[in-house]
Amino acid sequence: MNLRIPGPIPVPNNILEAMATPMINHRGLEFADLLKKVTAGLKQVFQTENDLYILTASGTGAMEASIVNTLSPGDNVLSASVGVFGDRFGDIASIYGAQVETIKSPAGKGIEPNTIRESLKKNPKIKAVLVVHNETSTGVTNPLPEIAKIVKNEFNKILLVDGISSVGSIPLKTDLLGCDVVATASQKGWMLPPGLAFLSFSQNAWEAHKISKMPKFYFDIANYEKYLKIKQPPFTPALSIMFSLDIALTQILDEGIENVFKRHFNIAEATRNGIENIGLELFADKNVTSNTVTSVKIPDNVDGKLLLSTMREKHNIILAGGQQELSGKIFRIGHLGLCTYEEINDVIEALKKSLPECKLAS
Amino acid sequence: MNLRIPGPIPVPNNILEAMATPMINHRGLEFADLLKKVTAGLKQVFQTENDLYILTASGTGAMEASIVNTLSPGDNVLSASVGVFGDRFGDIASIYGAQVETIKSPAGKGIEPNTIRESLKKNPKIKAVLVVHNETSTGVTNPLPEIAKIVKNEFNKILLVDGISSVGSIPLKTDLLGCDVVATASQKGWMLPPGLAFLSFSQNAWEAHKISKMPKFYFDIANYEKYLKIKQPPFTPALSIMFSLDIALTQILDEGIENVFKRHFNIAEATRNGIENIGLELFADKNVTSNTVTSVKIPDNVDGKLLLSTMREKHNIILAGGQQELSGKIFRIGHLGLCTYEEINDVIEALKKSLPECKLAS
Repeated sequence: MNLRIPGPIPVPNNILEAMATPMINHRGLEFADLLKKVTAGLKQVFQTENDLYILTASGTGAMEASIVNTLSPGDNVLSASVGVFGDRFGDIASIYGAQVETIKSPAGKGIEPNTIRESLKKNPKIKAVLVVHNETSTGVTNPLPEIAKIVKNEFNKILLVDGISSVGSIPLKTDLLGCDVVATASQKGWMLPPGLAFLSFSQNAWEAHKISKMPKFYFDIANYEKYLKIKQPPFTPALSIMFSLDIALTQILDEGIENVFKRHFNIAEATRNGIENIGLELFADKNVTSNTVTSVKIPDNVDGKLLLSTMREKHNIILAGGQQELSGKIFRIGHLGLCTYEEINDVIEALKKSLPECKLAS
Repeated sequence: MNLRIPGPIPVPNNILEAMATPMINHRGLEFADLLKKVTAGLKQVFQTENDLYILTASGTGAMEASIVNTLSPGDNVLSASVGVFGDRFGDIASIYGAQVETIKSPAGKGIEPNTIRESLKKNPKIKAVLVVHNETSTGVTNPLPEIAKIVKNEFNKILLVDGISSVGSIPLKTDLLGCDVVATASQKGWMLPPGLAFLSFSQNAWEAHKISKMPKFYFDIANYEKYLKIKQPPFTPALSIMFSLDIALTQILDEGIENVFKRHFNIAEATRNGIENIGLELFADKNVTSNTVTSVKIPDNVDGKLLLSTMREKHNIILAGGQQELSGKIFRIGHLGLCTYEEINDVIEALKKSLPECKLAS
């Protein structure tokens, strides 16, 4: 099975085997050592000296945590969305009572940084900006450095970043950019099964936490900080994924984080070239194209649903379809974590064979 | 290592090995089959025909979910607490804005059902009652059938039950008792690693959900229901634990749920007898003593901290200490899941040897 969706990703065997490690006491000495070690390793990959916490949750839980720990009902928030996950980020803030102003870019485009500048100029009451670094639904990587410069250097607002499908795969220098909260999840470039989420939390975010009035308990970062001081989790965590995280982090740090980024870029380039070589069109704009997930237009004369089922049934390759309004219009190829050129070549070859079989009757 | 804390528990080898199953598409056909199968199996163990959802979270996340899905800020809530987790249940409701009235029983005692009747009589505005079925911090199983009779039959209030360390180990007939929400977590009698939580949700709970105004997104049961209809999860779940859950459920249902309860009772009896035979005193009242965790008084002349470290270092046995105000006063022996008489005998023998070495200087 060649699982080529943008997470869960195929987990390398040695990391997968560690998932079967016997249980330990999550309030004991062995766990304390593990928690200390993986927290330090995660900070290196996040390129941060901010606090860092491990939640037992999907990435969406970490998105919610970033909001409820820094904001209050009634706060004005700017949400710059280019897809499903950007919309979700704003929705969560809105559900918790924030006044959300949304800048929406068309699918396949990135956020135009200047639109954020204009919005912040126009509405000085805006307290925080929500940005998805890598929009998994469209295969777009937003220009976070430019955005961060505006949000932090020009306006000094709280910057909350969904880095779920970018951290560890695409450069995201948390401290250099001044990101207050960065959220990510284990089933992406970390080469792990889903179930853990990671969250960096700046001093500035802590200042916001002090006056934050959104209700929270399971996701209250103060609970995690209180227990981290005694090297414990506040609540029983997904231990198995932490055992695997330990191994994955060692591998990532041994390879070197810059090399990991470079490897993701190279495999993404190979994917994009392969797609164009067989006459398909990339969906995302070239200047914002993602190095973790490639979105591809389904030609008008091709039955997209049939294409994905043919890829699955005849070639054992699992691709992701388009979400919501992009359903039937694009498909997506995930290449996060340890993805080989051979795996990508197999996808391209199989697409080449499958496309003619999936023509719509004209 | 003999891990004898009340969760995480030692996971049987065949279930542990399934944790290393390769990843699949959580929006694909294979997952749809898995979700359908384990949801049906969970309902059998919960003894319910109510809706049932799988959350990627610790048990505390499911406690929060039970509250935020059924209540609104300002709602009057009765919390009957006999320990740390009972307190937590009320705290969560209070943080989300409920008006919480607490009946607190002394540690080691169970809830006196009549106190609930009196409170509900006195305050007709109370909308929901929060009860921990098995209080892990004190080793007490509350008389849920009597409580449920009062809450549901006499007063028809919403009944939210923390069944984290009981469901699957101690009889809890969800439908027969009329429990509106029952929450539990994977690292208990389910014989699984931590990381998943399970939640049953009644029609009455759905009525409450319709008018519930507590904010929620990650824990919003409506998201889970919407996706369950197309046999998908709303958010990427902890797949590995679901693979293991499938095997664990098959084992539990093959053994027969009544036999599983009986087995837990027998091993708990053996533990209680063993403790008393070596001259130690049980902490919980006999009539409410738990079949998943046994709490034991630390004699006045024994150094409790030294006792636990001696058990760990000399005998490879991990016991749990007391939490909060019970720290140093009790220790706890977990016997959920597949626990053998031999494992319990080893604990008793090791305690017998260790106690004389841990005397306080008098």
